[in-house]
Amino acid sequence: MTLETTLAAIRPADERAMTAARELQARLTKPAGSLGALEELSVRLAGLAGACPPPLPDPATVAIFAGDHGVHAQGVTPWPQEVTAQMVANFVAGGAVVNAFARQTGADVMVIDVGVAIPLHGGATLLDANVRRGTRDMTVTAALTREEALAAVEVGIQVAETLVDQGARALLTGDMGIANTTPAAALIAAFTGAGAATVTGRGTGIDDAMLAHKTDVVGAALERHAPDPADPLGVLAAVGGLEHAALTGFILGAAARRVPVIVDGVIAASAAVAAAAFAPDSVAAMVAGHRSAEPGASVALAHLGLEPLLDLGMRLGEGSGAVLALPVVSAAVRVLHEVATFDSAGVSEK
Amino acid sequence: MTLETTLAAIRPADERAMTAARELQARLTKPAGSLGALEELSVRLAGLAGACPPPLPDPATVAIFAGDHGVHAQGVTPWPQEVTAQMVANFVAGGAVVNAFARQTGADVMVIDVGVAIPLHGGATLLDANVRRGTRDMTVTAALTREEALAAVEVGIQVAETLVDQGARALLTGDMGIANTTPAAALIAAFTGAGAATVTGRGTGIDDAMLAHKTDVVGAALERHAPDPADPLGVLAAVGGLEHAALTGFILGAAARRVPVIVDGVIAASAAVAAAAFAPDSVAAMVAGHRSAEPGASVALAHLGLEPLLDLGMRLGEGSGAVLALPVVSAAVRVLHEVATFDSAGVSEK
Repeated sequence: MTLETTLAAIRPADERAMTAARELQARLTKPAGSLGALEELSVRLAGLAGACPPPLPDPATVAIFAGDHGVHAQGVTPWPQEVTAQMVANFVAGGAVVNAFARQTGADVMVIDVGVAIPLHGGATLLDANVRRGTRDMTVTAALTREEALAAVEVGIQVAETLVDQGARALLTGDMGIANTTPAAALIAAFTGAGAATVTGRGTGIDDAMLAHKTDVVGAALERHAPDPADPLGVLAAVGGLEHAALTGFILGAAARRVPVIVDGVIAASAAVAAAAFAPDSVAAMVAGHRSAEPGASVALAHLGLEPLLDLGMRLGEGSGAVLALPVVSAAVRVLHEVATFDSAGVSEK
Repeated sequence: MTLETTLAAIRPADERAMTAARELQARLTKPAGSLGALEELSVRLAGLAGACPPPLPDPATVAIFAGDHGVHAQGVTPWPQEVTAQMVANFVAGGAVVNAFARQTGADVMVIDVGVAIPLHGGATLLDANVRRGTRDMTVTAALTREEALAAVEVGIQVAETLVDQGARALLTGDMGIANTTPAAALIAAFTGAGAATVTGRGTGIDDAMLAHKTDVVGAALERHAPDPADPLGVLAAVGGLEHAALTGFILGAAARRVPVIVDGVIAASAAVAAAAFAPDSVAAMVAGHRSAEPGASVALAHLGLEPLLDLGMRLGEGSGAVLALPVVSAAVRVLHEVATFDSAGVSEK
């Protein structure tokens, strides 16, 4: 689907299914409200699916979109750019943290080259959808043309479409791209109105001096482009990244197909605010997997009105926090499928 | 094993294994520290096992200890006492939330009658280890004799022993007992020195008037017995419950066998502070599964120096929060087993 048809397909949550889920929760053998955030999550997912109970989020796939960044030249990270391609190879070989987590929680892993700087040869589990071999330096010029940004968004939409067609009942966001917390911070600032110092963080763990410089870089890019949040494609082109744009499309594609998308850390959160700018109703499909230690992630989640499921001080990316949250999402839905009611179990009410 | 031999077997964490785990974490293909709390958890579990990597926590069993409470007569809950036995039947039939969560995360479920007020006929998955058909009312007399409390502790030790002998590599605490947050609050107050108003909560969701009364009941029991935290068995006898005492033994049994025990909510947390009073080194075996909404749980975890893995506003008990945390614990350990190093994956370092 194109971006246009995808946006046209996104609808609000189904109030009747949400009401049915609330009523079912009240009849299950547990004190009312005793599952806390999981109850509201189950209601939201019923509203997304338009059914109570909603489908279990199984099978689930984490799609790892990889890209490189012209702004790397500004010295915003101590890691060499070649690590993006090396980590893609690590994902394909199954050796990264996200692979270990996926084996634990039963998620499938898919890797998509949407913007890596050097040609990759990854085999069957690597999808070549390279739009451009890395973005331009956003402190000098727009990171992408509008056409490139749109192409990357549509890569994400297509991946979501294909996975849902193949049976996926949950999509999980993953990302890889050395320096990609810098465009993520710029995107979150542009869409939420927060300042560069509020949204810029230590990424992989930079020191105070590099953080100050990185904050200046984000601020300079925002000043140069003055991106307009009412033009989300323009924002993605000016200060985004190819994986950020693809994840935006991936989230929109999930929302159009009414399949939940578990949002990982700050890269995914920046894509989520972009997706909400394209289609506010897409928020109904989003589940915040965890609270990244990166400050921009919390700014973005607050903007979206989402509370994360996990808060473990993680800041790895790759989709690791989304994959780790998958069993929590599954458990929330499973309650509606499997737990006995007071009537059916012969349990007295208070 | 008896309580005495169990306590004698509990040893401090192994510093060499912890150092090895820290060094391994630093070589894995991820920025140092990027897995947040999971890294420290992996180090603790290496120290417990005395090996790096420690065993995966699989298979895992949640042991649900059920008991009734004489203090129920004081009107501390709107639920009838018969619900304890009815929920035991629900666990055995597989219809409760903890069963659904256990199917999701791969834990086995075992139910132990250590103190239910009425005789049960539960079939193969219900262990009859009834010490007494409910405690006495702690506002009138000691809830248990020292002998009864010891017998319940040793039920818990025996269950832990048997499960580890059968191959369990993680034990999870579960509980059922209408009114059991009242003795849990009293235990936490007795062991931590916190006041009744600080540790007493709404349990299944009581109103302001009942909460005020429940707080008075906890305060009155503490005043009557003036339990001495240096005599943990005396505390358990005075203001405890049979499932609280059994869980204390269960945790001590896990610690003696150097198997991690995932602590659920406020009932388990009260048993955990009792276990720590018996053997401070037992804390090395404890993993706090979640932060219960019940205030006493947070007081107990702070006393133990434990940070919970999940914080979802849950307040169900049954072991639900421990079972939901199991995949997080597994993922933390799996990283040490499966993730590639910078060397092995050919990934450049910063």
